[in-house]
Amino acid sequence: MEVVAIIMAGGSGERFWPLSRKQRPKQLLRLTQSGRTLVEETVERLEGIVPLENVYVLTSVGLQGMVRRILPQLPPANVIAEPMRRNTAACLVLAAAVVMERFGGHDVLMAAFPSDHFVEPVEEFQRTLQAALRWAAQTEDLVTIGIRPTRPETGYGYIELDKELQRFDGIPVYRVRRFREKPSPEVAEEFVQSGSFLWNSGMFFWRLHVFLAALPVYMPAFWQHWEGLRRAVRAALGQPVEGAYPGTERLFPELPDISIDYALAERAERMATVQASFRWDDLGAWDALERVFPPDASGNVVSGDVVLLDSSGCIVVDARTEKRPVVTLLGLRDCVVVLTDDAVLCCAKAHVQQVRRIVAYLREHGYEALL
Amino acid sequence: MEVVAIIMAGGSGERFWPLSRKQRPKQLLRLTQSGRTLVEETVERLEGIVPLENVYVLTSVGLQGMVRRILPQLPPANVIAEPMRRNTAACLVLAAAVVMERFGGHDVLMAAFPSDHFVEPVEEFQRTLQAALRWAAQTEDLVTIGIRPTRPETGYGYIELDKELQRFDGIPVYRVRRFREKPSPEVAEEFVQSGSFLWNSGMFFWRLHVFLAALPVYMPAFWQHWEGLRRAVRAALGQPVEGAYPGTERLFPELPDISIDYALAERAERMATVQASFRWDDLGAWDALERVFPPDASGNVVSGDVVLLDSSGCIVVDARTEKRPVVTLLGLRDCVVVLTDDAVLCCAKAHVQQVRRIVAYLREHGYEALL
Repeated sequence: MEVVAIIMAGGSGERFWPLSRKQRPKQLLRLTQSGRTLVEETVERLEGIVPLENVYVLTSVGLQGMVRRILPQLPPANVIAEPMRRNTAACLVLAAAVVMERFGGHDVLMAAFPSDHFVEPVEEFQRTLQAALRWAAQTEDLVTIGIRPTRPETGYGYIELDKELQRFDGIPVYRVRRFREKPSPEVAEEFVQSGSFLWNSGMFFWRLHVFLAALPVYMPAFWQHWEGLRRAVRAALGQPVEGAYPGTERLFPELPDISIDYALAERAERMATVQASFRWDDLGAWDALERVFPPDASGNVVSGDVVLLDSSGCIVVDARTEKRPVVTLLGLRDCVVVLTDDAVLCCAKAHVQQVRRIVAYLREHGYEALL
Repeated sequence: MEVVAIIMAGGSGERFWPLSRKQRPKQLLRLTQSGRTLVEETVERLEGIVPLENVYVLTSVGLQGMVRRILPQLPPANVIAEPMRRNTAACLVLAAAVVMERFGGHDVLMAAFPSDHFVEPVEEFQRTLQAALRWAAQTEDLVTIGIRPTRPETGYGYIELDKELQRFDGIPVYRVRRFREKPSPEVAEEFVQSGSFLWNSGMFFWRLHVFLAALPVYMPAFWQHWEGLRRAVRAALGQPVEGAYPGTERLFPELPDISIDYALAERAERMATVQASFRWDDLGAWDALERVFPPDASGNVVSGDVVLLDSSGCIVVDARTEKRPVVTLLGLRDCVVVLTDDAVLCCAKAHVQQVRRIVAYLREHGYEALL
């Protein structure tokens, strides 16, 4: 069965300010050791499994041009702009309409990926991906990839496992008992201890017809506009449209602003999850870098010309392109220091989740150029 | 009796890096609310008490030109370069030779001042100064100014008081029992509690002939070179010499590298101290700024375009002259952040005394341009 990849690249990622900006959100940052943007890595990880003409990137109108430049290997028509930010459920319904029209209603496998996560190594990702695709192809399940938790993270969604359904190449597939959103620290600790919970990676796999059958049942507010979306897509299909498909601007505001997790995964009966054999991180905030880059002997992660004395647990990112004042840290514990050409951030590591408050502050206080 | 002021401005002040540099040590920084350099303030505080032609500044060869430019009101010949860094005892012996030659051996009052301290308000400084000058003029005592301690500071020298000798305009003069150098925290606490200890401000007052009489007794290694220094000074006196007085280059290396406190004040029999009615701080390191500038409601002292969220007890100094990236602090406690055009310092407040370790590190690692 033909596989189509949908890469969701519409996010804004304010938590990596001052590196992330409106015009350069997280998926366009180079946050990993590869030195490539996260969206590039996401596309490259599919090599050999999904042909490039079947890789679609859905992003915002403002980022469409840059995404096309960053991914010259993709047909420009495959970089599609959502007319407005409308969360992952609307994104995947639009994508389904594209797939429907592109393949003339033939059943295909849809594989949806966030564009701003850390995944390593590629070989293990592909092994897991193959298992997810095989299970989705041979069943009527909605399939996700689950990550074995390594800490009691309270910011993630958890998947409670039911019985094992199958193994492919050593990768187990489980029936999902239920989804549990962002737990309290105590509950998260229990989840990790129990061994029967996985983190939800936000990757989804299903046959187009399985997804379409689910729409009227679980997502009626989307189903209502399905035909409208199909018509808008059909009129422009295969052309490298600048901006959103004409017609979708009217439809998108009608769609609920909800994630596919809430809209479908938490409600659907037939959910399965494949346990990842790769390392994964959602790169939720600056402190993620110490899980992605090897820290030095004092637990510091440093990029750039930085002098550290008596400092530990610090994350220092010097992303300036201009003449670079030397950065020195002395006696600091668990701090994040980030420098760009136009901003300096000094932040306690315990506060990294709140960096978006700075963005909000700047927005309200006339620092438009820094957003 | 004529009064001559000796302002000691040869210090290097590495603890205010990155603001302080070899070519711009602490006494040339604008660290107070006046916006003027500390050495300017030191000279201006003498107005009305010491005539400008009697104000001498002793500094290093490298700083002489800049000090002359900063203090255009002084005769250029009064800005004298020490041939090498040799601590305050050598500085004051050279100064005494200058005074000796300038006044043809007549007795005058010498008043010696550090050039890099905080003193406020000027009126109270002058009231205290008048008391010190009066006592020094009418006795054969070596006189210092003592500061009522406000905290158990371990970095200062303490003066143990003996009986009160006199009061001038409400300012008490005490006989000194003894000097106690940098005490342990417990001992410092006792000193403050006892009420009979003052901080040594490093200001000294004496009649030239009293100082000269003390030289052979307490400072024989200096006395040995006294005639040589006089001859070198006499040959060039009154001329705006560029660099050190010819001849002193040979003599200075022979003089002990010792402070006047150790060389004389701690040994001399006849020490008296005048209790200051002014606020004083030696501005020993970055944390001094919160004693000099009024902190905001969260205990932060901030200069420049800085955004602080959930941060307290922080000192932020933005001294950049170029295009200024905005600086944001989030969730930081008790940190010091200093930005110049070529360096950024992020430091735990508990580590401010160690900023000179950064300077040492930079010196050893080829960052000459940052020293």
